[in-house]
Amino acid sequence: MPKLEKKSSNRVSTGHLIKYSYLSPALGNLETSFNIFLPSHSSSPSTDSTRQNDIPVLFYLAGLTCTEDAGAQKGGMLNTAGEENIAVVFPDTSPRGAGIKGEEDDWDFGTGAGFYLNATSEEWKTHYNMYDLIVDELPKVLQEADLGLDLSRISLMGHSMGEGHGALSIYLKNPGKYRSASAFAPVCNPSKTPWGIKAFSSYLSPSTNSDNSQEPPESWKSYDSSYLLSSSSAPNGSLHVLVDVGTADDFLKKGQLEPQTLEEATKNRQEGEVVVRMQEGFDHSYYFISTFTPEHVRWHAKFLKA
Amino acid sequence: MPKLEKKSSNRVSTGHLIKYSYLSPALGNLETSFNIFLPSHSSSPSTDSTRQNDIPVLFYLAGLTCTEDAGAQKGGMLNTAGEENIAVVFPDTSPRGAGIKGEEDDWDFGTGAGFYLNATSEEWKTHYNMYDLIVDELPKVLQEADLGLDLSRISLMGHSMGEGHGALSIYLKNPGKYRSASAFAPVCNPSKTPWGIKAFSSYLSPSTNSDNSQEPPESWKSYDSSYLLSSSSAPNGSLHVLVDVGTADDFLKKGQLEPQTLEEATKNRQEGEVVVRMQEGFDHSYYFISTFTPEHVRWHAKFLKA
Repeated sequence: MPKLEKKSSNRVSTGHLIKYSYLSPALGNLETSFNIFLPSHSSSPSTDSTRQNDIPVLFYLAGLTCTEDAGAQKGGMLNTAGEENIAVVFPDTSPRGAGIKGEEDDWDFGTGAGFYLNATSEEWKTHYNMYDLIVDELPKVLQEADLGLDLSRISLMGHSMGEGHGALSIYLKNPGKYRSASAFAPVCNPSKTPWGIKAFSSYLSPSTNSDNSQEPPESWKSYDSSYLLSSSSAPNGSLHVLVDVGTADDFLKKGQLEPQTLEEATKNRQEGEVVVRMQEGFDHSYYFISTFTPEHVRWHAKFLKA
Repeated sequence: MPKLEKKSSNRVSTGHLIKYSYLSPALGNLETSFNIFLPSHSSSPSTDSTRQNDIPVLFYLAGLTCTEDAGAQKGGMLNTAGEENIAVVFPDTSPRGAGIKGEEDDWDFGTGAGFYLNATSEEWKTHYNMYDLIVDELPKVLQEADLGLDLSRISLMGHSMGEGHGALSIYLKNPGKYRSASAFAPVCNPSKTPWGIKAFSSYLSPSTNSDNSQEPPESWKSYDSSYLLSSSSAPNGSLHVLVDVGTADDFLKKGQLEPQTLEEATKNRQEGEVVVRMQEGFDHSYYFISTFTPEHVRWHAKFLKA
């Protein structure tokens, strides 16, 4: 198991925000960093043998260009997480320093844009495995670190790329593993929208439809929340998904988000399982996110503490 | 009156955060920018003749190296300000681009470090007049902009330099003008601590005490909250000051803040007028600030709405 190195610790809310780094096997042994907010009674690893591992965990998956600091500094969720006694984990958004050609060229691909998938193309597959990092490696690392967490109770929250491919797709690919998923401005249909097509065709495989049909490759659909939702095997009524999208979001206008495809995919689901709310006048920024994170954290708390 | 140019507008909390720029006479006609959070019913200049100018205003004065964006993005106060229906103004921390030799050399002097004073030294006096900008110019500009504000009800909140010389000293220099002042990690005794001595000796005048006495020049004391408080003519019981300092603040340890001098200066004041709280384990960062801003905003709201 990789060894955690503590980089910094700041008192905040009822507890601490701690930054850790470690060499990640999922990322081909590159160093990765994450922040974790630990509410008061789990503020540091302790030798107290009576401590309960009873703090549920919310993962916050940030969007394109962000690091592990964005949500922690600007997300506006830590006071509520402290009140609810929930830990929040802020992973990075991609490997750093893999040294792959083109990795640093674009803001929406490569560094800062890992898209929370496991790459399969020759060039990217050694390092670009953020899916494995989020789903398997980080929970194990956290368990091992003995921070007082209950890793059987995890929920997901994310922004933009962080949710479209991250929180939502991870949630839908792993029925029963997570308690709930919420999203701000998610990329809902990446296999048919520009950011997703660009990323998937390099990380996974080129689109091989020689007949120019509209159907994307199966490997793309396996990371596409709209496809995942419409084909989900999760029992009716078992999903808990909350999505907020600002009506003044430029990326909504440019067709990057496509929340209506997600809504269409909910047709056969029980009423209220997947709630998509359009928020009048809000954009894609952290001003939007920080307005609603307290409500999202409280919404997750219901399921995390159920 | 300078004309405001709207640079951006983001929906946040119950209203909007709007960034304006204008050519500031106080700063020798350099362009300055500020952000203002306007709660819902005053979200934009309107032609509605029935509108009440009834929104009280809280000024947030940021610390060294910061701009008008720091408090808006990381301060964690906008949701509470929205709930309380209070506007929050985030000015910049210094002039920009004055072109004075040495202005860009240090992080704690010149650009990003205006110290909320009016410079009197030949070199700096044309542009470095943040005191005038905060106390006189900006309220007039805001009045003229017709944003629905009630500029007769203003309070001050600040961080570090933003409070030690800014909010606190401005508050104490203008008895009756402001409703209340609150501070995070303020520089309480700048005329005797390193940042202040460095700034005051250039912006104001060199220390002229040839006898090496401990007494700073009068011009320095006129921006020093501890001196201002001990000599304040404000009637007993009329002050409302709330100060939070983290016990793990590195600048506290290095002797930059000296909250005990402020506490000593309260000796002859009524109990509870000036409250200085040491917050266990907190440091100098926005993690500290964002933990307590909701409480500070509610505290100010009591006086702003009284």
